[in-house]
Amino acid sequence: MTIEIEVLVEQALESALSRLQDASTPPTLSRCLHDAVFPGGARIRPRLLWAVADACDHGRPQAVAAAAAAVELLHCASLVQDDMNCFDAADTRRCRPSLHRAFGAGMALLASDALIVGSLELLAKADPDDPLLCVDLVCCLSRHSGARGGITAGQAWESERTVDVSTYHAAKTGSLFEASVELGALCAGAPAQHWTDTGRQIGAAYQVADDLIDVLGSDKRHGKPVGVDASLGRPNIANDMGAEAATAHLIGLIDGVLESLPDCPAPALLRSRILEETNRLLPAGVDRSAA
Amino acid sequence: MTIEIEVLVEQALESALSRLQDASTPPTLSRCLHDAVFPGGARIRPRLLWAVADACDHGRPQAVAAAAAAVELLHCASLVQDDMNCFDAADTRRCRPSLHRAFGAGMALLASDALIVGSLELLAKADPDDPLLCVDLVCCLSRHSGARGGITAGQAWESERTVDVSTYHAAKTGSLFEASVELGALCAGAPAQHWTDTGRQIGAAYQVADDLIDVLGSDKRHGKPVGVDASLGRPNIANDMGAEAATAHLIGLIDGVLESLPDCPAPALLRSRILEETNRLLPAGVDRSAA
Repeated sequence: MTIEIEVLVEQALESALSRLQDASTPPTLSRCLHDAVFPGGARIRPRLLWAVADACDHGRPQAVAAAAAAVELLHCASLVQDDMNCFDAADTRRCRPSLHRAFGAGMALLASDALIVGSLELLAKADPDDPLLCVDLVCCLSRHSGARGGITAGQAWESERTVDVSTYHAAKTGSLFEASVELGALCAGAPAQHWTDTGRQIGAAYQVADDLIDVLGSDKRHGKPVGVDASLGRPNIANDMGAEAATAHLIGLIDGVLESLPDCPAPALLRSRILEETNRLLPAGVDRSAA
Repeated sequence: MTIEIEVLVEQALESALSRLQDASTPPTLSRCLHDAVFPGGARIRPRLLWAVADACDHGRPQAVAAAAAAVELLHCASLVQDDMNCFDAADTRRCRPSLHRAFGAGMALLASDALIVGSLELLAKADPDDPLLCVDLVCCLSRHSGARGGITAGQAWESERTVDVSTYHAAKTGSLFEASVELGALCAGAPAQHWTDTGRQIGAAYQVADDLIDVLGSDKRHGKPVGVDASLGRPNIANDMGAEAATAHLIGLIDGVLESLPDCPAPALLRSRILEETNRLLPAGVDRSAA
């Protein structure tokens, strides 16, 4: 199953990127768009989307593929912007020069623009026979990306003098996980709001995992700088409570996700897929099932 | 009529901006969003959109207002990015400090993100009773904004060594004028493709007018730096052929627009509104009707 999903996600992204370009696309922008998306990271958001859609028995593979690509393209756009000098000034991403270092800030910014509008265009065309679904998909992803608690709001909290850390993390990290599970449910005709808490919980777990990587990870393994949060004075739970306690907290959060999964037509499939995805969040050498 | 449209456009923009924010929006982002949109410039794109929708007898004021706001918000996002250091490094816009100078590059970028996703979200909600219209509106604006000949592609052409100037201008400037007239037609249930040429022609006239402003304009009148094209080595028809010949060329383009307007239910209204909008493109002191 894992391999199949990996292949489906990459195919969906290749198809999506090719649909967003044509002969009129400037060649440098085209290369920049490719390098923003490939090679990818863990692809956890589209994998979660697909897991929820499968568990809800969607029967609409094209819409699911479009939605999975859309959420990952939007995530890639956010990474491109995060690396720019106005935010993290990161030299590397996924073991290669970050996009703004390789192509310049202007081209990186334009690639992120094309990915953002492209992700919403993909959703608007996800199922030509069901315009209401398409509208719901566009509204879902745009809401979780914008100024009302979306990732844009999340990043903007970094510029405020006083920030509630949980509000900041929920918007910056959690919102796109909420979007992922909600989009998966919508594609299957399931009520999106039943899945919001699951997305929020997985987002919270992912944030702890990301904090742990920033403290424990090596540049070689993750392809991006480590220790960034401490150097930028950003909140990091693994810095605050120590890596061991943060790992135990992460395991508790994952247990919480698994214990409160919504009802769906294929609960066993859902549980195994969510277990697979959340286990990938654990630091190397940690086995949740043995904890 | 002019005053009424001015009021309608500003009301639509105020309503749109308030819908894109809520209590969870970080306060600095909120101020930045406001200053990206108000006070505005000529608002020619939403005015054109409204003119086409009115001439096609739309009967859907809420959808037209949403679409008019959407195209202007997207335009404002493009101006915010144009002014950033990775492009024009402009200190001023509309007689005030440019957004990245006033709020920093990161906050300006986030405001542009929120305006981009917000503009497409507005279209997805333009008429809850007509999801097919909403899908068509989202597809129209996203196509004209993206990498397939949209404004993103247009800006990206500036980074290529060889550029076809008409391709560059059609994408960077023309695409949003095409979007404006097409969105207006779509809101009225009229065939959008009948209006594309009108949008392209108005875009070409606007480009010449903009080139003339860069050569003739004063910082005081337009609130942005002049002489930028020459200093950045960008193509400018008024630099190439001289201001007088460029003005004559502009008048010819405007005549071309007026002579090839599509059929619609209210042709006299259309003609008067388009005449009004295109006359605003002429340099101060030039009277087209006397030419």
